[in-house]
Amino acid sequence: MSIGDAVKRVLVGRKLASSQLGDTLLPKRIALPVFASDALSSVAYAPDEILLTLSLAGMAGFAFSWEIGLAVGFVMFIVVLSYRQVVHAYPSGGGDFEVATVNLGPNAGLTVASALLVDYVLTVAVSVSSGVQNVEALIPQIAGHEGWVAAGCIVLLTALNLRGARESGTLFAIPTYCFMVGVLGMIGWGLFQILVLDIPLRASTAGYEVVGDPFYLQMNAFAMVALLARAFSSGCAALTGVEAIANGVPAFRRPKSKNAAATLALLGTIAISMMLGIIALANLTGLKLIDPHGGSHFEVDGQRVDADLTAIGQLADMIFRDFPPGFYFVITATFVILFLAANTAFNGFPVLASILARSEYLPRALYTRGDRLAYSNGIIALATPAIILVLVFNASVTALIQLYVVGVFVSFTVSQLGMVRHWTRHLRVETDARARARMQRSRIINAVGLSCTGTVLVIVLVSKFVYGAYIAVIAMVAVFAVMKSIHRHYAKVIAETAPSPDDVRTLPSRVRAVVLVFDVSKPSMRALNFAKAIRPSSLACITVAAEEQETRAVLEAWEREDLDVPLTVLASPYREVTRPVLEYVNSLRSANPRDVVCVFIPELVVGHWWEQLLHNQSALILRARLFFMPGVMVTSVPYRLASSQAALDRAKRGDAQVAAWRRSGSGLVRAPSIEGEPPESKHADAGRR
Amino acid sequence: MSIGDAVKRVLVGRKLASSQLGDTLLPKRIALPVFASDALSSVAYAPDEILLTLSLAGMAGFAFSWEIGLAVGFVMFIVVLSYRQVVHAYPSGGGDFEVATVNLGPNAGLTVASALLVDYVLTVAVSVSSGVQNVEALIPQIAGHEGWVAAGCIVLLTALNLRGARESGTLFAIPTYCFMVGVLGMIGWGLFQILVLDIPLRASTAGYEVVGDPFYLQMNAFAMVALLARAFSSGCAALTGVEAIANGVPAFRRPKSKNAAATLALLGTIAISMMLGIIALANLTGLKLIDPHGGSHFEVDGQRVDADLTAIGQLADMIFRDFPPGFYFVITATFVILFLAANTAFNGFPVLASILARSEYLPRALYTRGDRLAYSNGIIALATPAIILVLVFNASVTALIQLYVVGVFVSFTVSQLGMVRHWTRHLRVETDARARARMQRSRIINAVGLSCTGTVLVIVLVSKFVYGAYIAVIAMVAVFAVMKSIHRHYAKVIAETAPSPDDVRTLPSRVRAVVLVFDVSKPSMRALNFAKAIRPSSLACITVAAEEQETRAVLEAWEREDLDVPLTVLASPYREVTRPVLEYVNSLRSANPRDVVCVFIPELVVGHWWEQLLHNQSALILRARLFFMPGVMVTSVPYRLASSQAALDRAKRGDAQVAAWRRSGSGLVRAPSIEGEPPESKHADAGRR
Repeated sequence: MSIGDAVKRVLVGRKLASSQLGDTLLPKRIALPVFASDALSSVAYAPDEILLTLSLAGMAGFAFSWEIGLAVGFVMFIVVLSYRQVVHAYPSGGGDFEVATVNLGPNAGLTVASALLVDYVLTVAVSVSSGVQNVEALIPQIAGHEGWVAAGCIVLLTALNLRGARESGTLFAIPTYCFMVGVLGMIGWGLFQILVLDIPLRASTAGYEVVGDPFYLQMNAFAMVALLARAFSSGCAALTGVEAIANGVPAFRRPKSKNAAATLALLGTIAISMMLGIIALANLTGLKLIDPHGGSHFEVDGQRVDADLTAIGQLADMIFRDFPPGFYFVITATFVILFLAANTAFNGFPVLASILARSEYLPRALYTRGDRLAYSNGIIALATPAIILVLVFNASVTALIQLYVVGVFVSFTVSQLGMVRHWTRHLRVETDARARARMQRSRIINAVGLSCTGTVLVIVLVSKFVYGAYIAVIAMVAVFAVMKSIHRHYAKVIAETAPSPDDVRTLPSRVRAVVLVFDVSKPSMRALNFAKAIRPSSLACITVAAEEQETRAVLEAWEREDLDVPLTVLASPYREVTRPVLEYVNSLRSANPRDVVCVFIPELVVGHWWEQLLHNQSALILRARLFFMPGVMVTSVPYRLASSQAALDRAKRGDAQVAAWRRSGSGLVRAPSIEGEPPESKHADAGRR
Repeated sequence: MSIGDAVKRVLVGRKLASSQLGDTLLPKRIALPVFASDALSSVAYAPDEILLTLSLAGMAGFAFSWEIGLAVGFVMFIVVLSYRQVVHAYPSGGGDFEVATVNLGPNAGLTVASALLVDYVLTVAVSVSSGVQNVEALIPQIAGHEGWVAAGCIVLLTALNLRGARESGTLFAIPTYCFMVGVLGMIGWGLFQILVLDIPLRASTAGYEVVGDPFYLQMNAFAMVALLARAFSSGCAALTGVEAIANGVPAFRRPKSKNAAATLALLGTIAISMMLGIIALANLTGLKLIDPHGGSHFEVDGQRVDADLTAIGQLADMIFRDFPPGFYFVITATFVILFLAANTAFNGFPVLASILARSEYLPRALYTRGDRLAYSNGIIALATPAIILVLVFNASVTALIQLYVVGVFVSFTVSQLGMVRHWTRHLRVETDARARARMQRSRIINAVGLSCTGTVLVIVLVSKFVYGAYIAVIAMVAVFAVMKSIHRHYAKVIAETAPSPDDVRTLPSRVRAVVLVFDVSKPSMRALNFAKAIRPSSLACITVAAEEQETRAVLEAWEREDLDVPLTVLASPYREVTRPVLEYVNSLRSANPRDVVCVFIPELVVGHWWEQLLHNQSALILRARLFFMPGVMVTSVPYRLASSQAALDRAKRGDAQVAAWRRSGSGLVRAPSIEGEPPESKHADAGRR
């Protein structure tokens, strides 16, 4: 096994047979990092966005960071509580999409799906941009080229995912735990130094004066409220990813729902502590951030200065001033978890697209499952807009975050509304008093969740609409409209192609074979022989006299070969190839309306795409035109050139590798999570709630 | 007939049957403008390029404009003389490509072809850029957006040519004569005013001081020689297009060669007079130009000023100061002839590409002749690099001209060398003294032509290489290499596919039909019925169990339809579609190695490209993979959706229109040139020389 293979075996989870799905249930200690990287990683940018938005109001703005932080924490608490209800009620893992579809109908489901699809794209763009921003602390040369670096990272993620890398428990667990340990450790050690050891830590920006946007500096009450709302909305980015666990319930060990709910609570606690810890330290150490595009800047003694470290970067720099490995550890863990968060979108998007494709809301090509081609269409559909976004916004987290939070809260709000309907529906039929009490409590929790997320959604929309949220809204509406029309199209096609008894019984009476001869060569001979093999009622070989000299050469070669079938030469006064053939086939059809015409086209099979440009172009055009003729079938008779063998070998090597991965099923990556536990039925678990 | 149709009938020449080709012979008065637009149009920029290159040496530089103009005129005189020999010796119209191939072998021919292909691209780029520059005199708002405007013009030309507009005698004659009358009239009237009426005409830039590039201002002898060489090289752009008549001999009326030679002489006289006239007037009126990118600029009293009219623009403005219609007439005629010149490349490039494709130096798809698709590949292959060029160089004629002249002189030089060889070869067998004398005289002319064009080629290469000519050289070498490898590839394929007696006789013993069933629908039923119609030795319907629920639904529907063929379900533990099918077909092949397997794939025929994205993707992948299996033929059974009817109607309307154009053969455009003259044979004419 080469080193490349070994690396890949570590990176790539082996393929799983459908019947094996039950084998890969996750214990909580693995499930937490697998599903939490998205939610936790937002701690890397959410506090920054709160602080830098507040900086627009100058030094006075930072005074509000505590309030904003607590408000975001409160919303997260409510959302986690609400999702614990979802986890219990829908253990199948359909998540918000299922909740909305089941309780509110397909349009609500589609709304959620549109929001999620757009949000996956933004998760990739924001996480990678934030990752690049963090890497800048280590490689300052990136400054000024963030857009291209971020695009390069997305291309890399795409390539890895196209080759089949997938989420894998242990591998994900390590950096996520590193991040948690690093950030919580940093916060703890920082607070310990300040509060217990009474060491007065000062952030590198503590001595700077922040000059805000003149507009906000007047402290106009309305403007301030708008600014606080915007800071809060940006902070709510911390909530993205919370829903991941609700989608992942089937991957948990039994009792699934209970374990998932416990993990959710743990995730919420950790995320809130991290965020509030960072904000607390920022307040205690005089840490400041600015929004250069928004209009605030640093000054020292009236002189403008630049500084663009992230909050985590500044804190790590300060707290581990005497212990550089600590700084490198935190920064590295931060950008690794941000790339993992982007990678979760690469897993989530194709799965959701596949579910939507299965329900015929997206092209069926996105539904293909299980082989090397798996999900590749979905992966490309995700990566392309994400790359465009990071290039257009030059990987600015602050700019991208304006687009971000909308989708998450659309999905939260619709799904909470669905949950309220869910409990109301169940209460209508439930008679057991204890069950009713539990349901009523759940309904209250979800109603609170609904009003809370709904309010946040309105705040986010109002405070960010002109700053970029409108782009996300337009994108969601467009995705929604496209999915609706795809669905209508498929429904129309199914109605149009539903078999009627006539179709099934009416057999064409005879087969008339037509062999297209471009030249006298092995491919043409093979086409002729195959045509003879079907023993048609009539067999005609035709060639088009587009060029006198060539036609004569073909006729002479035909006679030389002494074939028992005459070669019909079709006149082509206008030197066309397609029309005479179409006219010939058409006349054959008209003369024998009850028969089927089978046109044999010899085609060369080549090994490289550029060889394809050199061959078969006439055949392609002809086939496309013949497709429009009723009662005609087109038979391609392939002739494999030597160069095609190379392509075949390549494909075979790929297949062999896939087979090898399968055989080595007990292998490296998923090993810790394989338990041989039998798959649970959805209903069994649902009943136990 | 709608107005659109009427306009189109005027713009578009009707199609011609092969046998009609002889009907369209041109009298000299039409042939001159048809073939001369390219050569004459270069008068619009060649004098400008001489003047602005000289401006780099400051005011003193312009003193050399006379010498440079005369040198270019002399080269043109020699080239015209030389081409008169070509016209007599090769009346078939193969031009430089034929001369080089016949006398110097295929590699020389390919060299000429590469040079010409690259030059066609540059003709489009330079002519359109110069046209846009001239239009700026009328629409100053274009300034700053020249690149995009020029790209837009090329897109428009491409669209017109893709729709089938072609060169048409009368329509071309009008603007070309307008240009000749306008420019010669302007020169004549200007000279009359100055020399006879003694009116002291002053150009608008006459009062400006030109400050050159400091490097040339030192008047270092070597630098000056280099600058003069560059100015001369740029001026040689006036010679591009002279070869067009040599390619067009077959279109002339009898005696073809004599008429063509006379037209060539006339063209040379007019072009030289125009160019020298413009330079003379520039000298007499103090007209100046600068090269802002090269480093020269205008000053008035030490203050930098801007002025960017072309030479023709300044002259027309000055000479027709009291008669504005004269100004508008000249400017309009200038840009119209420049666009016509670009259009000639749109006719020339696809024809040359078609000749090369016929000899298998380019993909055969470029050889398709005669129908609406005709030449569209060639047109796009020409337009794409031209658009890239004008965008990259922002439609700067001065920048593009550095790339231009190389190709023309490569082709001139190789073809003159070929002509010398031609006469030497003929002299070896010719015994008649008078014929020998004539041939010897011709050989001397071509030898002079060779040394002259060869010298110019060296001057052009040396003086312009670093300024951009290297790009043209690289492009030519690349085109040459690609054509060689395409030729090798086709030769290899022909050798590989040459029929052997075995191929012709060995018939597969039996046909085993396999019908792919994705769902129970009309398309599947049709595929099954067509498969039954060929009465195969065995018939299997297969479906892949990628998804349990779906498979069950298909099986139930199959039973409901009560079909007499069982449905085989292929297990797919890894949820793949392709592999189980390939394995099934493979096992069928192994069990019956002497039989042929015919796989029937139902395919939906749709009307729009986006519908194609929604259907048939599995079928496409399967077909591509099945192509690599020996002894398998793939039959597509099309099922036409209602929406496909719209696409068919569109195609039919297009066909009907083409047919209508044909019927209206005696119509508008070619009418003046149709004479009913019988087609001459090439040999007859060649003998008469």
